[in-house]
Amino acid sequence: MSEVIDVPTPTAGAPDEVDPATLTEVLDGAWGQARRWARTFEPQRFDTRSYELDTEAHRARVTARLAEFAATGMPQSGFPAIAGGAGDVGGGMVVIEMLGYRDLSLMVKAGVQWGLFAGAIAALGTERHHREHLRRAVELDLMGCFAMTEAGHGSDVQSLETTATYDPQSQTFDIHSPTPSARKTYIGNAARDGQLAVVFAQLRTPDGDHGVHALLVPIRTADGRPAPGVTIADCGRKAGLNGVDNGQLVFDHVTVPREALLDRYGHVAPDGTYSSPIESKGRRFFTMLGTLVRGRVTIGGAAQNAAKHALVIAVRHGLRRRQFPGPDGGEEVLLLDYRAHQRRLLPALATSYALSFAQDQLVTTLHELMTADEVDPRAQRELESRAAGLKAVSTWHTTATVQACREACGGAGYMAENSLPLLKADTDVFTTFEGDNTVLLQLVGKGLLTDYSAQFEDLDWRQMARFAADNAVNAAIERTVPRGVFTRLRRGDEGVHNRVWQLTLLEDREKHLVETVAARLRRGRASRGSFAAFNDVQPHLLDAARAHVDRIVLEAFLAAIDGCERPEVRRLLEKVCDLHVLSQIERDRGWYLEHNRISPGRSKEVTRAVDELCEELRRSAGTLVAGFGIPETWIDAEIARA
Amino acid sequence: MSEVIDVPTPTAGAPDEVDPATLTEVLDGAWGQARRWARTFEPQRFDTRSYELDTEAHRARVTARLAEFAATGMPQSGFPAIAGGAGDVGGGMVVIEMLGYRDLSLMVKAGVQWGLFAGAIAALGTERHHREHLRRAVELDLMGCFAMTEAGHGSDVQSLETTATYDPQSQTFDIHSPTPSARKTYIGNAARDGQLAVVFAQLRTPDGDHGVHALLVPIRTADGRPAPGVTIADCGRKAGLNGVDNGQLVFDHVTVPREALLDRYGHVAPDGTYSSPIESKGRRFFTMLGTLVRGRVTIGGAAQNAAKHALVIAVRHGLRRRQFPGPDGGEEVLLLDYRAHQRRLLPALATSYALSFAQDQLVTTLHELMTADEVDPRAQRELESRAAGLKAVSTWHTTATVQACREACGGAGYMAENSLPLLKADTDVFTTFEGDNTVLLQLVGKGLLTDYSAQFEDLDWRQMARFAADNAVNAAIERTVPRGVFTRLRRGDEGVHNRVWQLTLLEDREKHLVETVAARLRRGRASRGSFAAFNDVQPHLLDAARAHVDRIVLEAFLAAIDGCERPEVRRLLEKVCDLHVLSQIERDRGWYLEHNRISPGRSKEVTRAVDELCEELRRSAGTLVAGFGIPETWIDAEIARA
Repeated sequence: MSEVIDVPTPTAGAPDEVDPATLTEVLDGAWGQARRWARTFEPQRFDTRSYELDTEAHRARVTARLAEFAATGMPQSGFPAIAGGAGDVGGGMVVIEMLGYRDLSLMVKAGVQWGLFAGAIAALGTERHHREHLRRAVELDLMGCFAMTEAGHGSDVQSLETTATYDPQSQTFDIHSPTPSARKTYIGNAARDGQLAVVFAQLRTPDGDHGVHALLVPIRTADGRPAPGVTIADCGRKAGLNGVDNGQLVFDHVTVPREALLDRYGHVAPDGTYSSPIESKGRRFFTMLGTLVRGRVTIGGAAQNAAKHALVIAVRHGLRRRQFPGPDGGEEVLLLDYRAHQRRLLPALATSYALSFAQDQLVTTLHELMTADEVDPRAQRELESRAAGLKAVSTWHTTATVQACREACGGAGYMAENSLPLLKADTDVFTTFEGDNTVLLQLVGKGLLTDYSAQFEDLDWRQMARFAADNAVNAAIERTVPRGVFTRLRRGDEGVHNRVWQLTLLEDREKHLVETVAARLRRGRASRGSFAAFNDVQPHLLDAARAHVDRIVLEAFLAAIDGCERPEVRRLLEKVCDLHVLSQIERDRGWYLEHNRISPGRSKEVTRAVDELCEELRRSAGTLVAGFGIPETWIDAEIARA
Repeated sequence: MSEVIDVPTPTAGAPDEVDPATLTEVLDGAWGQARRWARTFEPQRFDTRSYELDTEAHRARVTARLAEFAATGMPQSGFPAIAGGAGDVGGGMVVIEMLGYRDLSLMVKAGVQWGLFAGAIAALGTERHHREHLRRAVELDLMGCFAMTEAGHGSDVQSLETTATYDPQSQTFDIHSPTPSARKTYIGNAARDGQLAVVFAQLRTPDGDHGVHALLVPIRTADGRPAPGVTIADCGRKAGLNGVDNGQLVFDHVTVPREALLDRYGHVAPDGTYSSPIESKGRRFFTMLGTLVRGRVTIGGAAQNAAKHALVIAVRHGLRRRQFPGPDGGEEVLLLDYRAHQRRLLPALATSYALSFAQDQLVTTLHELMTADEVDPRAQRELESRAAGLKAVSTWHTTATVQACREACGGAGYMAENSLPLLKADTDVFTTFEGDNTVLLQLVGKGLLTDYSAQFEDLDWRQMARFAADNAVNAAIERTVPRGVFTRLRRGDEGVHNRVWQLTLLEDREKHLVETVAARLRRGRASRGSFAAFNDVQPHLLDAARAHVDRIVLEAFLAAIDGCERPEVRRLLEKVCDLHVLSQIERDRGWYLEHNRISPGRSKEVTRAVDELCEELRRSAGTLVAGFGIPETWIDAEIARA
């Protein structure tokens, strides 16, 4: 097993003398134990690489690998004791995130099975469902689907068309797809393996409509054929993730028993009487969705890990590949010695560190809330907002970083054997699934506008415009890490490296963006009406959300540095943090200049500092990618062989 | 055949009353005849879509399609009469570019066969080569490779390691790969189909080394096996373009006759005496490379066409797909009615128009130079620079645009049946091959610094730094279109829509960037040495090059509008041009503000204008994508069916 956790060593003679293992320890953060455990997962190797397989063979391999993963006991660990787990919510998420380094089809398939399918039974079901299905789901005896998205409605889940109509006579629900656009689509596990589906449908009882609820619907019979009334279609070939069997489900008056309703938040009595602990239909729906936040968090973490894998490949290539004669007339110049090449890779590397720290913090917060006895609804909404924001920013970071790494490796980066094509193709949909990034950032923006006081049903543009009109929006910056972190920040006459200056700049940007969105909404509503007012500020609102995420990511980085005890590691991380935040200030310098937040001279100083940091950190690039702690056997690229 | 050239109609009731066919006519520009001819190419359809095929089946299909393409007579048209062509250089390029709409594997395979292989024989060979090989190559009786790139040297072609050593005794050349890094790699047509290769190698005769030259080397015997001494390996699966058989070639002392040397620019007499019409080794090499500029131009055009295909799909989807309740409580809101969605797609759509005009102009200039009796070397260098710059900018535009289109189509954009995955995967390497974009922009930057006076051998950082030190660089803006275009520009009190203001802003940016690069190089060379000086300014130099390309692209747009006679088309194009150029100014506003070129207030005006133009042009979006003139049967996406 020792080979498995063999972590790559940096290029010899890295001047900073930082042991990559100490960086790994800092990055592993609060979830070190789970991460170290995950690093021992070494599935069977195959001669044929996955990109040579046809769809069916690839799916079969991933399903087999899923069983190997289940056999480790890792995915079970996050579930409660009734399902045979240890109740380690955070650890259970982290082990699935870690699959993002290794095999993204497997990661997504695991996410569907444990995160979405079993996760929904655990969160939305009651004791009977847990007893009958959860343990089997968790042990992979029962494979399932999470059938939410429909052809007509993906982002707008409240408008789903599938119906679940209760008949008191027979004490059954009738599950039905009333229109072509009601068909469930892109459903993982549907095309090949799923036996049971958690189906989201509009619940109707004799006393009325109760909004979207989830029900357990068998979709295949014991011999693997579609269940009566269920039509299953295959989504076919995708850009990537071809080891996951996405499919479509159409229900033609499928009958399921009353007990099929996952009824933690909405119960139907035998006589058809509906009851719920939550009165508001909208709030009920968003409470249900909120319990599923884990999936979104895991996707963000897995995407970050895929970006790190890409960075290891591209940085190692850049430290080996030479091109054009060098200054001494001797050896040719290493790619990573070119400033333009450094600028392609090193700021992304720095941001990968930053996002990791934020992710670790998010998992911890989620773990605390999910294992707490009682949860403040505002804290829950803030968590959901942060999960949404970090998922959006992380997955876009991955899309951009994998692309930059591919280009930085030239022709070699285009060859399947160097993994970048697969990383690109597999992660491309991460910006879309588990919530489209734009829609998610809008959710974050709304939370900022309303200071998390509003219920989630107020998300739509009409309510947002009304809220801005009715309330004085005074965006308060609530720091997400302990106060001590800030009091210990370096400050003084360090120019653009002054940490307090950097942080204040980001805070000020967030505050100004939020307050001006509100003002524009107010004015616009009066002159152009609610929709136009919302639409006019939409890009501005997304900027505000983005600024908010940027700020909390920086705070997480600062907290990680603050908690770091080794001085040499700390020094290195301070530089990485500088490169991260100054690159972002450089990117947004148009805004800062426009709003007189920085002078032209200061703006040029920022650019100069980014250049200098690139030059400096290029010497630690090998150490920094080794610090990710990806086991050597997981790094799957000819050009990155140790 | 009429179905074939059926061009899609826009959504009903587009308010601008512009007939898309009139837009197509403007876009078709000087090469309308060739483009209309290309639109009649309708290869056989197959039940199995290409993404369902394994590598061998895909390659076989593309090779068959290549024969269908040859049978149309289109690819031959650009060759001289001796090869059975019409000498229509520009037209011959355009028909291959047009394949970029249709099938990118086919486009690349055609580019290898006609552009690179036959093109090199035509440009570098002499009468004997034309007689013996050119016609067969052009007629596809002889399939060939262009074996330039080696594992160790791609961008730095002058440092290739393969040798061609002449032996006067036997009057033969010995072709040899002396090291593992000398193996030719990523060579199209090598793994499966190629019979003969144009091999670039260091030419050695008894009187010395003469630099890189090209020779014809058979790589397969008549029965399809590797020729003696030639080892052929398969590059295997790639991100995309899997219908093209890229391979590696290793030569173990392969003997070819003296006549194998393509000797237009370097001749070896039977006794081994070397002679050349060009004395300087470096200039000779770059003259040879210069004759191959067509390939680079075609790649840029094909990439632009792939981006247009993606835009048709995403815009049509955005005009059909609805999500979230609308303002009237009735129909849900169309995706393209959201401002954030408009901002994702419409500036890219506008820039696609801009790049098309610049491409058309570039093809025309190239055609004129290639068919002229005598060519001014400076004009030739300027053409090569423009080809390099437009290739880089066009292919990066494609990478970003296809990505934006994929995301804008959500889950549907990830399904292979909607073509965006294939467009993304196939075009991803366009930023790398036919010259890595960063290296190409550097070439442009160097041309600007030296005002095209220097020879191309002076490209390296040492010479660049020396040039800056020795010469006063006074960047002169040389406009690329007739003077009348500028005198007729709209001006006056139109704020950010004032065309003269826009153009002057871009010109000024280019000039300032070029001059300050020179000054920094001069200072840096004195204090830090040539390499550090070059490296410090590398991102700045790339910005200067980019600014130059942006300016000539705008000029091409202005010339196209100037030549447009229909007032309603002109009005629409003026708006498209505004969106294109103001989006670019918005993107670069950090720089403009930093350098006091615009005030903060003006900067915000630009952002407002982009928003307004998005709102306005959203109504013409269907018309604008229809204007691309892609035949309906070529648009290969379920979500974009007419």
